[in-house]
Amino acid sequence: MDVASSSLPASHDPASAVPSLRIVGFDPGLNITGYGVIECFGGRAKLVEAGCIRSRGEGLGERLLTIHKGVVEVLETFRPAAMAIEQLFVHGRFPKTAILMGHARGVICLAAGQAGLTVHDYLPNRVKSMLTGSGHAGKPQMQAAVQRELGLARPPSPADAADALAIALADYHLRVRPARSAAPQPLSARPGP
Amino acid sequence: MDVASSSLPASHDPASAVPSLRIVGFDPGLNITGYGVIECFGGRAKLVEAGCIRSRGEGLGERLLTIHKGVVEVLETFRPAAMAIEQLFVHGRFPKTAILMGHARGVICLAAGQAGLTVHDYLPNRVKSMLTGSGHAGKPQMQAAVQRELGLARPPSPADAADALAIALADYHLRVRPARSAAPQPLSARPGP
Repeated sequence: MDVASSSLPASHDPASAVPSLRIVGFDPGLNITGYGVIECFGGRAKLVEAGCIRSRGEGLGERLLTIHKGVVEVLETFRPAAMAIEQLFVHGRFPKTAILMGHARGVICLAAGQAGLTVHDYLPNRVKSMLTGSGHAGKPQMQAAVQRELGLARPPSPADAADALAIALADYHLRVRPARSAAPQPLSARPGP
Repeated sequence: MDVASSSLPASHDPASAVPSLRIVGFDPGLNITGYGVIECFGGRAKLVEAGCIRSRGEGLGERLLTIHKGVVEVLETFRPAAMAIEQLFVHGRFPKTAILMGHARGVICLAAGQAGLTVHDYLPNRVKSMLTGSGHAGKPQMQAAVQRELGLARPPSPADAADALAIALADYHLRVRPARSAAPQPLSARPGP
């Protein structure tokens, strides 16, 4: 398993009563599965770690074993509170590829279930649109958007790790933040009479 | 997990130098996964156990957990030497279903990998053709063929368990027997000079 960044301790925004939330994103693939862990608070997100699980060149069973072991290791190491994954869409031209991708996605969802995590999924173009304003953004655009959003010195690489970080960011901005802003504010945070 | 038949101890054909082989077949599905265990020797096969793993009504993660646990339990209980599964074919009208089936198949193949078993897969029409002479045989025809092949008092039920037994039988007749007959005979079995 490749590791692209060192870890960051859990933290929270001292100006906010809302605790930080650690989210992991996965970009599933039979050859390379990207993963990205972020820590979110007060509308901002920081990189914890990103990398990829490589299973190229092995048989299907071995690849699935490698992916499952890698995902279990990521979940045990970083203990995220939420998990997001790319939603598989049916591509008319490559249905066989989509079915094989379903195998990889199956063992990733299994690892989530074994860790007691619910999986939230997002269509690739929704993630792209949220980060770049275009549902058809290319890989360099996505890497630049993730770099900007996480305040990184350089674009995250490889692209699979950047895609996984983008999915984690989508989970924060599309699901967690709207839910938090809709929830009743704690008494201490309410304006006085 | 439903159990459709009681178990049979491992055995071998006393008239043959070839030991018996225990094969498990799986018919993967997100709602019901059929399984069938057979013991084979000298061109014949006997039922060990057949049944199904039901995961209907749960969320995707929970279903995958149920399927994986059930498959692990079958492999640990019956310790088969070989494993066969239905090969997913791309059905133009239901690509989304095929992708979801890929998830179920992924966790079954993972359980095989974790148990050190190689998975052999067969297209449904090849299995049907081998057992009934028609690649388009219906479920009752397949259940009757499996009943005849295993010498059962009644057709195996439900159909998912019968399909899993059919896949195990296909593995024996299409892969194991041809390989055994092509292998050099032991000296004791060769005709004298």
